[in-house]
Amino acid sequence: MQNAATSIDRLFNGDRRTVARAISMVENDTSQAREILKGVYTRTGGAYRIGITGPPGAGKSTLTNKLARFYRSKGLTVGIIAVDPTSPFTGGALLGDRVRMSDVELDDGVFIRSMASRGSLGGLSNKAKEAADVLDAAGYNIIMLETVGVGQSELDIASAADTTVVVLVPESGDGIQAMKAGLMEIADFFVLNKADRPGADQAVMSLKMMLGFRSHDAESWMADVVKTQASEGKGIDDVAAMVQRHRSWLETTGTFAKKRRSRLEQRIREIIEDQLHSEFWDSQRSRELHEKLDLLLHRQTNPYDVAAGLLEHFRNTGTRT
Amino acid sequence: MQNAATSIDRLFNGDRRTVARAISMVENDTSQAREILKGVYTRTGGAYRIGITGPPGAGKSTLTNKLARFYRSKGLTVGIIAVDPTSPFTGGALLGDRVRMSDVELDDGVFIRSMASRGSLGGLSNKAKEAADVLDAAGYNIIMLETVGVGQSELDIASAADTTVVVLVPESGDGIQAMKAGLMEIADFFVLNKADRPGADQAVMSLKMMLGFRSHDAESWMADVVKTQASEGKGIDDVAAMVQRHRSWLETTGTFAKKRRSRLEQRIREIIEDQLHSEFWDSQRSRELHEKLDLLLHRQTNPYDVAAGLLEHFRNTGTRT
Repeated sequence: MQNAATSIDRLFNGDRRTVARAISMVENDTSQAREILKGVYTRTGGAYRIGITGPPGAGKSTLTNKLARFYRSKGLTVGIIAVDPTSPFTGGALLGDRVRMSDVELDDGVFIRSMASRGSLGGLSNKAKEAADVLDAAGYNIIMLETVGVGQSELDIASAADTTVVVLVPESGDGIQAMKAGLMEIADFFVLNKADRPGADQAVMSLKMMLGFRSHDAESWMADVVKTQASEGKGIDDVAAMVQRHRSWLETTGTFAKKRRSRLEQRIREIIEDQLHSEFWDSQRSRELHEKLDLLLHRQTNPYDVAAGLLEHFRNTGTRT
Repeated sequence: MQNAATSIDRLFNGDRRTVARAISMVENDTSQAREILKGVYTRTGGAYRIGITGPPGAGKSTLTNKLARFYRSKGLTVGIIAVDPTSPFTGGALLGDRVRMSDVELDDGVFIRSMASRGSLGGLSNKAKEAADVLDAAGYNIIMLETVGVGQSELDIASAADTTVVVLVPESGDGIQAMKAGLMEIADFFVLNKADRPGADQAVMSLKMMLGFRSHDAESWMADVVKTQASEGKGIDDVAAMVQRHRSWLETTGTFAKKRRSRLEQRIREIIEDQLHSEFWDSQRSRELHEKLDLLLHRQTNPYDVAAGLLEHFRNTGTRT
């Protein structure tokens, strides 16, 4: 693995092309990816990770762009992983939002990577975390994980970030809608973007009211709402200040270590699940499943007995290769 | 299992209280749940399943309500599974939308069940499908699976339905946003609800334009957009007609059988994954993982080697109980 070792050295020195290549290897799951990630892991932990999520059209890319500029003005380097769920019939990430990134993209202290979902969102969120590890090991101070939508993948991204920001707009609906979409649980704080639009103050009030229902004691973090007009650069420093406030809270209460510990635990569980899955579904058991489907469609057996049979087969033979 | 057998007989006769109890058993994963589901399976397949999804606030509950009334007026019975992602700090499903359901709820030919997510969304979507099986075996003609949000859980619900309807409003953003949220892939057709609001026609145009980009030949289904004002009862018959058109297409092209086959395959894979997961994470391996976390936090090992060690242990001992 001479090659991988050399790559990793270059990576630690922050060589952009090596960083880009390493992320591509991770994304395409090449044979070298695992070796690189093992090497990378020991150098991670230095970067602060910010998750940015929310419904489509909320202005996440613009906010990410402006925040990146803010951190650059403070002398920090920034890595951005933008997760773009993509339609299989377009065959690539939509580039519209990324175009707006171009001014920070020319900055050598900012590394931006879009990752598109081809197939499983679960797999993508693992790869986004691995790409964040690569950027972390390469020495970027701040890593932003930006993701579109309001579903399981966002909960996953959230669990990979130290601070999770949920971006809404006045049209996103009120606090009850945010709660129904599961955003209340993952938000360390909310950003109400496009705050010049009608209904902004009501949206903020409604979010604050719902946040007030969260059970908390003197020790716990009080999530709040920050208003921005990201496209005008308004409120960006307030967002950065809120990230800093949350970071301080995490560190002084010991929550930071706990959060990173549980993130690590989650990561190992995911690696194991991937591995078990591929061991289980070898060609023999896949074939057996397909043979059983006809019996099932004719209601001559049931899914639970078929599953039990395949599991029995795995127990007896599948794991002794 | 005298008790389970008697329950199943009552269930097949459509006894409401037995249906309710069976779904509760499934939801709470009681020891009898598996026996009931095995018994139920052989009687499933009669119901037509409609998935209804979309972002929070789009009016899905209202549409579901009105569609249920429409089918009732045609003499069909209707089962509704409403999946409500819920905040852990409120501790129950939000009932706001369900209140509006009350007029159909008084109808004996409609069975409504809200299921809240406590913990994993993945587990919930499995349970929603199992509850749909119970309603199917109990003889309901139409089953509607309604779910909030735009993420992985909705893709799962979609894979459990024969026809999947994605409900949007003019404020949901344009076709590009819908595509970014992954809605284009799962929608058999779109409903643009609250079509009296400004921007409705542009939203329809934009959705149709994006749908036009989908690759298709003469045989393939052409997804379309239906305008509604569900709260006024406007456009409901158009939605039902579109469901019927899609159903006919599924049946005449043989896609129906293929879709149900792959749904069944997915189901077995999920049962096996759940089972493998609980076998793997016994107390011993869970303890070992926790012991390794400290070494990991001090960067003395990496997640991949820890995972490999646990998998090795599982291969040697874990499956021979």
